[in-house]
Amino acid sequence: MPDTRLDVLCIGNAIVDVIANATDDFLSAEGLVKGSMRLIDADEAERLYAHLGPAHQVSGGSAGNTAAGVAALGARAGFVGQVAPDQLGNFYRHDLTAAGVEFTTPPADVGAPTARSMILVTPDGHRTMNTFLGAAQHLPISALDEAQIRSSAILYLEGYLWDPETPRYAMLRAIEVARQAGRKVAFTLSDTFCVDRHRDGFNVLLDEGRIDILFANQAEIEALAGVPHLESAVAAVKDKVSTLVVTRSEDGALGMSGGHGATAPAAPIGQLVDTTGAGDLFAAGFLVGEARGLGLEPSLRLGAICAAEVIQHFGARPETDLKALAGELVA
Amino acid sequence: MPDTRLDVLCIGNAIVDVIANATDDFLSAEGLVKGSMRLIDADEAERLYAHLGPAHQVSGGSAGNTAAGVAALGARAGFVGQVAPDQLGNFYRHDLTAAGVEFTTPPADVGAPTARSMILVTPDGHRTMNTFLGAAQHLPISALDEAQIRSSAILYLEGYLWDPETPRYAMLRAIEVARQAGRKVAFTLSDTFCVDRHRDGFNVLLDEGRIDILFANQAEIEALAGVPHLESAVAAVKDKVSTLVVTRSEDGALGMSGGHGATAPAAPIGQLVDTTGAGDLFAAGFLVGEARGLGLEPSLRLGAICAAEVIQHFGARPETDLKALAGELVA
Repeated sequence: MPDTRLDVLCIGNAIVDVIANATDDFLSAEGLVKGSMRLIDADEAERLYAHLGPAHQVSGGSAGNTAAGVAALGARAGFVGQVAPDQLGNFYRHDLTAAGVEFTTPPADVGAPTARSMILVTPDGHRTMNTFLGAAQHLPISALDEAQIRSSAILYLEGYLWDPETPRYAMLRAIEVARQAGRKVAFTLSDTFCVDRHRDGFNVLLDEGRIDILFANQAEIEALAGVPHLESAVAAVKDKVSTLVVTRSEDGALGMSGGHGATAPAAPIGQLVDTTGAGDLFAAGFLVGEARGLGLEPSLRLGAICAAEVIQHFGARPETDLKALAGELVA
Repeated sequence: MPDTRLDVLCIGNAIVDVIANATDDFLSAEGLVKGSMRLIDADEAERLYAHLGPAHQVSGGSAGNTAAGVAALGARAGFVGQVAPDQLGNFYRHDLTAAGVEFTTPPADVGAPTARSMILVTPDGHRTMNTFLGAAQHLPISALDEAQIRSSAILYLEGYLWDPETPRYAMLRAIEVARQAGRKVAFTLSDTFCVDRHRDGFNVLLDEGRIDILFANQAEIEALAGVPHLESAVAAVKDKVSTLVVTRSEDGALGMSGGHGATAPAAPIGQLVDTTGAGDLFAAGFLVGEARGLGLEPSLRLGAICAAEVIQHFGARPETDLKALAGELVA
């Protein structure tokens, strides 16, 4: 990559995770779909919080987790997202900065606090997310540092950004700036409910050729293509992007790039503890591989290594030395 | 206990724990004594936080942990402590309330945010605490609900309260109210550095007969007595209180009450994960035993069961069903 200052610049909702245990009965009583992410307003956030068990807080957000993973691999990562000038916002900024991520988006007093997602962990280890977007949904185009975007080899965006209108336009502008500078644009479909909400918008992005690298898991790509079969879904989407990456949990991942296909098995793990962040960290590994020109198959392997690390502990950001785990892939 | 509304009312510093991994080199560079708790001001809190790795936040505070343990055993627990009207304060209140603890002390805008303790976890599992007391050090006498104190079978206080002047006077007033109502007063020495700072004050409390039940670990009681031998230290202190409880980590605990002595072994554990909260939860179990009139030895055993639960996971509050673990002791 000529004259880049960052390898991967991630734009996403800046969200602090508020994690609590919950029973299946609690989910039923609340009418929640296990494993899904739903958006809630301030009133519902307050009501649900009052019913939530004791919790702990960790910085999250899909693209934020990816940025932390990119930095943990020793690559140059940046993050763009909106926090409020409050304690949660300070906490969020601290964690990314401490992870080595460049995070210069100023906090904004937009009358809403920093976003938080109440994550209900059921005894089976599944997580059901209730996200109050707060300040995150106010990320304006003016918060973008266009010079930063132009000097980043890859711009990475989360599908969740499509939910609130203001960040959607910021995202579209960021894509424009990156493409004009000849940078790559990567995008994740985020989750199936997100795809259901925004299928048309996502398809326009793809049809117009604005996305170079698309990340999806099997359910998401099937939802996007509207077909309940992996191969048909991949066939329907693969020609719209330079590189398509589909993650398949314990079945590994597959990639398609320029008519060439590759697969990588899931990296071996000891014990599965918490799947949160698996997709975010897979993306981190793959993008670092891409930024370094490793090629499709090694990049998939690097993604698998990062995903395997994050699912062996609670929390969606790496806790062990990813560089060491990646070995010669990032040496 | 005649006409009590709460079994145990705990007064302590309301502190959110900010937990991050750190290396031994980091502790050395910062001049920190591993395993200790030091008090820091706002400037130092900001400076240290800027150097801290990514963190997660959980509600803590010694007496707050004990209150959560008492409630987890199915007993009636209350907590008194000062938070600010901010996000950390809301978080702290939520966690205690969600744990079933009565926490009615109103937040106060005293120009300082809710307290937090930056806890540095070294690879050997030891924890070094850096506490910014913030709002906690402003707990005034006027925040006490004297009717609540009078209707609580046991008033439990942490030695850490002695550090800031304002809560010290609130604590002394609470003791007075409890004693006048014929309630029991329990006190923990908190840590050896705390004893070193306040040995004279603690000894006055004991000499004046204001404490019924004293909790200490071996190092703390030796520090209080000024002798480096457990038996001599116990002999020097035991006649000043109705009940003396000394915890000895994996060597179990001993109790002295009315000339009668008892011991209990440490409860068996699978894997030691994190010793934070062991003393707090031991106190919770013992106090519930005391409130229910179980007698000295069964109360020690109940303390040991609660301590064993909390050291098998990260965090200083119970995560599994303490009532079930305690079995017929609390049936």
